[in-house]
This record gives sequence, structure tokens and C-alpha cells, in this order.
Amino acid sequence: MKLLRNIWYAAAWSHEIDESFATRELLGEPMLLYRKHDGTPVAMIDRCPHRFAPLSMGKRVGDSVECGYHGLRFDCSGACTLNPHGDGRIPQAARVRTFPVVDLHGLVWLWPGDPARADIGLIPDCAHLVSPRLKTIGGQMIHQAHYELVVDNLMDLSHVNYVHAPYQQVDDFLRAKHDVVQTGATLESRRTVPSTRAPQSFRPFLADPDTPVEYWLNIRWHAPGCCVLETGVVPIGEPRENGLVRIGTHLVTPITASSTRYVYASSRNYRLDDPLADDETARWQQMGFHEQDKPMIKAVQSRMGDRELFSMRPILLATDGPAVRARRLLAAMIEEEARQSEHACAALV
Amino acid sequence: MKLLRNIWYAAAWSHEIDESFATRELLGEPMLLYRKHDGTPVAMIDRCPHRFAPLSMGKRVGDSVECGYHGLRFDCSGACTLNPHGDGRIPQAARVRTFPVVDLHGLVWLWPGDPARADIGLIPDCAHLVSPRLKTIGGQMIHQAHYELVVDNLMDLSHVNYVHAPYQQVDDFLRAKHDVVQTGATLESRRTVPSTRAPQSFRPFLADPDTPVEYWLNIRWHAPGCCVLETGVVPIGEPRENGLVRIGTHLVTPITASSTRYVYASSRNYRLDDPLADDETARWQQMGFHEQDKPMIKAVQSRMGDRELFSMRPILLATDGPAVRARRLLAAMIEEEARQSEHACAALV
Amino acid sequence: MKLLRNIWYAAAWSHEIDESFATRELLGEPMLLYRKHDGTPVAMIDRCPHRFAPLSMGKRVGDSVECGYHGLRFDCSGACTLNPHGDGRIPQAARVRTFPVVDLHGLVWLWPGDPARADIGLIPDCAHLVSPRLKTIGGQMIHQAHYELVVDNLMDLSHVNYVHAPYQQVDDFLRAKHDVVQTGATLESRRTVPSTRAPQSFRPFLADPDTPVEYWLNIRWHAPGCCVLETGVVPIGEPRENGLVRIGTHLVTPITASSTRYVYASSRNYRLDDPLADDETARWQQMGFHEQDKPMIKAVQSRMGDRELFSMRPILLATDGPAVRARRLLAAMIEEEARQSEHACAALV
Repeated sequence: MKLLRNIWYAAAWSHEIDESFATRELLGEPMLLYRKHDGTPVAMIDRCPHRFAPLSMGKRVGDSVECGYHGLRFDCSGACTLNPHGDGRIPQAARVRTFPVVDLHGLVWLWPGDPARADIGLIPDCAHLVSPRLKTIGGQMIHQAHYELVVDNLMDLSHVNYVHAPYQQVDDFLRAKHDVVQTGATLESRRTVPSTRAPQSFRPFLADPDTPVEYWLNIRWHAPGCCVLETGVVPIGEPRENGLVRIGTHLVTPITASSTRYVYASSRNYRLDDPLADDETARWQQMGFHEQDKPMIKAVQSRMGDRELFSMRPILLATDGPAVRARRLLAAMIEEEARQSEHACAALV
Repeated sequence: MKLLRNIWYAAAWSHEIDESFATRELLGEPMLLYRKHDGTPVAMIDRCPHRFAPLSMGKRVGDSVECGYHGLRFDCSGACTLNPHGDGRIPQAARVRTFPVVDLHGLVWLWPGDPARADIGLIPDCAHLVSPRLKTIGGQMIHQAHYELVVDNLMDLSHVNYVHAPYQQVDDFLRAKHDVVQTGATLESRRTVPSTRAPQSFRPFLADPDTPVEYWLNIRWHAPGCCVLETGVVPIGEPRENGLVRIGTHLVTPITASSTRYVYASSRNYRLDDPLADDETARWQQMGFHEQDKPMIKAVQSRMGDRELFSMRPILLATDGPAVRARRLLAAMIEEEARQSEHACAALV
Repeated sequence: MKLLRNIWYAAAWSHEIDESFATRELLGEPMLLYRKHDGTPVAMIDRCPHRFAPLSMGKRVGDSVECGYHGLRFDCSGACTLNPHGDGRIPQAARVRTFPVVDLHGLVWLWPGDPARADIGLIPDCAHLVSPRLKTIGGQMIHQAHYELVVDNLMDLSHVNYVHAPYQQVDDFLRAKHDVVQTGATLESRRTVPSTRAPQSFRPFLADPDTPVEYWLNIRWHAPGCCVLETGVVPIGEPRENGLVRIGTHLVTPITASSTRYVYASSRNYRLDDPLADDETARWQQMGFHEQDKPMIKAVQSRMGDRELFSMRPILLATDGPAVRARRLLAAMIEEEARQSEHACAALV
């Protein structure tokens, strides 16, 4: 599985990680996640460098981890601090690989690449997740598919009218004005339907559900797996600020070549304290993501087997534009990263 | 898995396929089967050429199929007839592969090879399945084995006295007169026991179960996987027309290198309207095919792993003659087909 | 999976094998085990050389085995004695591979190598298993791991204080005097704690559980997979003969590269007729071996995948000495065996 490494990935919701050991397979590696007593998150490979036991089968001693097989102890930097055997000397190579991790926007972000380059400023802006002016409902799941297929699904929103009909169907969606803008490593796809009936998911929250609305749907992709999707409706003629807006956050973290962690949330600017609106969102996420997207994406993976998308010569349509551009941009970034890493190695020789 | 492609395979019983979508893995491919409104069967690869979603997750629109992922529509010839996106232009390569399929003898037959050569006259004669002078009871199952192991089982009927004893056991079977005749791509193996006790499966239907009978068992193999097996008993001295006769139909369709669809039927010329005789047949099929043959063939596959039979240097006995001839005939046909296809390609260059 | 072949492996407890067919996957092969009418054990490959059916699906005829598929019959030497088909001639190659097997010390031992070298004197001494002065409680299980990982677990007993704490914990274990002695193909690791509190597992059987004791733990490894572990406690100053002693027998037989048969027993020199002591032992074996060792060893294998231990550059500690020496000794023996076998082949040319 090809991966961008010098980049932040969503590893978990912040509230999921506490002082007990959590284990996640992420980015092809078994990971151990927990918090120090001061609340700082820690991530390390969940495998002792001695006899390869999962460290998660051991126990905490202070902020350190003691292997449950033969008792080696490692601190949060991955350094071995105790060898209870023989003369107690600690071999120099006795280290567990750790990863930069930070809490931001309610999420724990993990950086699998060069720690020296782990700049928190590179985390994609998801401040809306914790904005007091929005109400956020989130969840997560495992897709049985390569992470790029999950991104493809998000980047080609024309699937909404088929996979998510009728709930999210937009009557004139296929005739929407659509443009795609690239800014560095982000790609933005914007659709506007100037006049339409509000989709079912907005109707209960409009003063008059049948009033004609402007509908818009903007998706911003930040390589490799962060998609932020803004959808809104506003009565025709009114400014968008008056509209009902939902910001969908979709964070895709590779696990293996055929499985992907998918963290999602929906942040709305209306009825912040209405539990019925909360329920409506949770019900939609369950239906839309778990019951509609998930089996479809899994079926696509199953029909592809372990073949790469372009090797199967897919028929490409107008709506594939953003997904194909995202794939190409990501491929170029991965290649560039490999080139830099070769240079770095050459420089060391 | 090596396959003969320019040949008809049994895909399903005709009554199994209706206007709703049926999916079957056949010949290494996921297949979508359904009937047009006029009743004609349709078979196509169950995979959209756009993003590889299973078409069976979509829906029918008239006789066409609409993909459930992004709405491409295909007619029964596999041509794309609707692209709902962008300017609606249909890419030339937007085609689903379809296969010739026909109803004959109560079965749906599928031709995976060159459609121009799909001559219905090549379907093996199974008219007995729908003859009004016979009563047919049938079924099907999946063998967890390579299709040639399923054919081997049918072509070496000496297994009956071991795997199917005592129900189908013939006392003097191993001493039967036995000859094998090849006619083109069919092989016929004929056994006669001039005088014996009727096997248990015939005894309840004889006037005197203990009368000495002539017993015969003829199997006709039509490459690669159609075996028609006629067994009969008649009191000694009487003509075979007076006898009790059962025609067993065994149709073997490869799925993967270690799984095979097996369609079977038994057609008898006695007690056509007797539900007890129907039950007797169904009980035998359940016991003989599902509970006796199936675990044995699966166990053989398991002991062979993914090795090819001859690479394991099996000890060959007299009774292996028909199965080995069938294997060799089939291998030659597959090789000849490959050679022809190379010629065809060369001619195009 | 690399294996020593000219060596005895424990295949089963003697009481498990009777006149009926038992099947075990051992040493990469499906094995059929049973006893002749005179009680002698028989082991052969569970696969007919004709069509590769498992012989265990057939039946016994006298001391012979009749294949359940087409009726070939084999005697206990593996020779085909009956071909019921055609002229009944028996092809020369119609043989099943058999293996030397003997009952000794309550176990059935199997020799997968050259039968001419199968000297019963080479079976490791486990006479304590049937000694009338000891009471033995045993069992077995399948480890989901390579056999060398199971041996490693036994050879590095420092895991006891972590995996088996608190039940088997020895307070001063990590400070024990420890030496390792190699004698030919056996390796002995001896630990003595001159003065300590008796471990929990001995305390109920001491006159005064709190009296300070000398504790010793000797493990003798006999390549490739026999470990005999003597643990004892005796009040300080008394001779070891007066002590409470348990001899643990651990027999490791490879199945596949990631599964291993593990036969174990504990023989004690105290309270021979006390069912409470029996229960205590059985409870410890269930907890210690099945619930503590087994998941740990399985997790290690899972973290290693199909990689070889040294290729992963494990950090080695003082306590790894015996396990690493055992691995190196075994590797040398396997290499030597391969060399001899090449010489033998060369000599035949």
C-alpha cells in the first residue's frame, strides 16, 4: 500500500483515548495509544523490540509501558528504561518506535513520517468540529476497502443521488454548476443548484419546506484523506449566511491495502440544542454511511480484488474529475516524498 | 484455472432465473442473470465498467440495468445507453461484457467464448430432462473442489460401491463387462452385469425384488462437464425396453480453481406420478450427492491443495481409464482452442 | 518450515490411540494413527496414492486400511494388498508412506526421518511420566505459532514472573544463580534461589508455607522440542531429596509454520493420592498454559507474521541465552542433516 508519510492522519476521537491502552491498526502498523497522566497522548508501535509481544498486553507503570512477556519497560519516547534481567544493562537498540501525536479539533492526529517535520500547522483546519456556533455529531467505522476508494466515494458526490436516494437526493443535482479549484495540495469541488426543492434532509428544518432554495455543495480535499463537505440551502435571493448549513467532516486513515478507518462528523448551524435534530443526524449517518456507502464500497473492492484502479481501465465520466485529480495529486506527492527520502539517504552516505 | 471457453455451460435451472437479478460466480467471473420482459434470459459481467460496482446492486429500468453507484445505464447487449452526468456523452468503451445465454431442456446455458460461434446445436442433448415419458427430480450444489475432480468422480463409477454402499451397490459391479467408446468430443463408458441382484435403489419398484436381473450402467461425457448416466435393470432374458431405467444428468460448471457448481437430476421411466418414488429420488440425491460425494471430493481437494493431479503422480487403475481419457481429451481441446485464438490474433495483425 | 527429521516427536498420549482411526496434522503432513489388534501403533500418511482421498475416510479390514473412495487396501507397512478393479494387478508404486512409531513413557513417538535410523534409544528420557513414585497430570493443546516460539517460551523462564504472576512468581527469581550446560544435543539451564518464599503453587503443600526455602528450577532441552523442567522447594539447610518437587514435561511437535502441537504434563513427588493436588495441577495447567501462555505466544506470532525471528533483529537479553543457544544448536543440526542427506544421495549416484 502506497502512503504519504509526512502528513497528519486522524487516529481517533480525542475522547476515545484515555490512560488505558487502546490498540489500533493504522497505516499498516499495530499502534498502541494512551494518555500520560498529564493528558498528553502517546503513540507507539504495539510490539516489544525484544520478543515482539504486543506491548498492549503489558501494563502501565507511571507513564511508561511494561511488556507483559519479560518485563522490559519503555518510556513515552520509546526508550527502554528498565531491563530486569541479568546485569540490567539496556541494549542500545532497545527502543520502541513512537510517533508524534497531538490533540486538535477534538481529534488525535498521528504523523507517521519524519518526526522533525511534524508541524502542527499542517493539520487540516477542522476547527468547525469544536465551534460553539455549531452542533457536531460524529462517529466512525472500518471500511473493507483501500483508502483511495473511500476518498473516491467522497470526491464523486454524484453517487448521492443513487446510493443515498431519496434522503439526500437533490432534484437538479446533475445539472448543478460545478467547478474544481486546486490550491497547493488541496482540491476544492464546488457545486451550485440555483433553484431547486430542498433535499429531504433539510426540509424539516426550513420554515417552509416547499420554498424554492439555492442549494450548494462544496467539498474540500486535503491530501490524502481529509474531506470537508459544506452543504447548504437558502431561500432564493437571500444571502448564504441566512441559510441552513451542514459541514461534513470525513477523515480517511489507511489501515491495510483493503481496510480503512473512517472518522466522520456532521456540524450544523441550526437547532443547536434540538435533540431531534441530533437524532436525525445520527440516523442519517447510520443509514447513509454504514448501510449505504459501506456495502457499496466493499462490493467495489471485492470486484477489483487486489488490482489497482487505473490498471482496470475504468470508464471515466465528467464527475470523476475531482477524484481522478485527487488520485493524481496524491500519487505525485507520494513520488516526491520517495524522491526526497532518497536524496536524504544519499546525503547521509 | 484452465477452461474450455467455446462451449455451453449450465448456468442455472430455467425456473431459477426470473425478472429479478440473480448473481452467480461462474467460470471465474461474477455474473448477473435475469430475464427480459419477453422472458429471454440475459447474462452479463456483474461489474460496472465505470467504477466496478456490482450491477446487481443497481436496478432494472425496462430491460436495462442501471448501476446503483452513479447511474450509468446498460441495455441487454451491454451497451451504455445513458450517462446522466456532465454533457451526457457516452464513452465508446462504456460497455459491459454480455454472454450468449439460452433456455433449453429446462436449463439456462451460457457460452463464455466467442459469441459468433455460440451455436445452440452444440448444447449437449438433455431432452430427457423435459420428456413427458419420464419424471425428473433435480437439484444443485457447490462442490469445494476443482471441476475436474467432480468430473473424475462421475467418470470412475467404481466409487459407487464404496462411497454409496449399500444403497447403490451392485454386487457384481467390479466384474461387469466394461468398454469405453470415444466419438468426437464425447466419451461413452458402458458397463453390463449380465446377471445380478437388483441394487437397493431399484428393488422397491420391481414386481419381484429378488428376481435376477441384467444391470447396465452407461455414462456419456460431453466435454468439459456434462455427464449423462443411464442405469437400468431388467429381468434376465427380457428386452431392455421393459426395464426400469433412470437417466442421471450431471452438469459441472467451474466457478474457481477450487469450487464448482454442480447441477444434477434424475429422470425415471417408472411410477411417473408416484410421490413416494419422487421422495426416494430426492432422498438419494441428498444422501448420495450432498452427504457422500461432496465431503469425499472436498477432502480429495484438500489433500491435493493447489497441486495438479498428474503432478502428484497418482497410481492409475483400470477404472481410471474414462476419467483419464476425459482429462486428456479436455486438455487437448483447451490447447487447440488456445492455438486457434493465437491464429485469430495473428490474422488480425 | 525447517525441521529436524531424524528424531522422535511426540505424536499423542498412548491412551489416545486405539483401534479406531485418529487423524493428526503433524510435521506438515496429514497423519493416520491407529493400533493393530495386537496393540502396536501404526502411523501412515492419511492420503491414498490413487486419488488422494484421506484413508481415514475409509475403514479397517483386519489390521489393514481400505480406502473409502475406490477400495484399495493397504497393510501396516503401507503396501497395497488389494486392487479390486480390472485384473486386480497391483501397481508397484501403490504404497502409502508409513512411519516408525512406538509407545514409550505413556506417549506415542513418531520418527519422520530415515526409518533405518529410528533407534528407540534416542527417545528422550521421560520415564518420570510413568514412575510409580510420582503422580502425573497431563494434557495438550494446539499453539497458533511456529514451534520455535513455543520452545523459546519454555527456554526463557523469566516470562514466569510476568505471564504467570502471581501464581508461579518467585520473588527473587531474577536474582537467581543461573548457568547453562550443553551436553551433545541437550542443553540444561539451571537456576537456584538459595533463600526465598515458596511460590504460591507450592505453599499449600508445605508444612509451614512461610518457612524460607531453597528454590531450584532446572530445564533440560532435548532438540528439537522436548523440555523437562524440574522445580523444587526445600526448607533451607535440608537436602533436596526432602523437598517438594515437580517435573514438568513439555513436548513440542511442529504442525505447520504457524501451528504446533503441545503435549504437557506435571509429575509431583508429594500427595500422590490427593485429588485436591490433582485439581490444583489441572487448574494451573488450564490457567497457565491455555489462558496465559497461549494468547501471548499467538500474539507474538501475529506480530511477527511470517518473518523469521533473527531477520527481525530482536533485542537479546541475558535470559535469552538458553533459547538462542537452542535455536542455534537446532539450526546446526538441521543443516548437518541436510548435508548428510546430500551425501547419501551422492553416494547412490
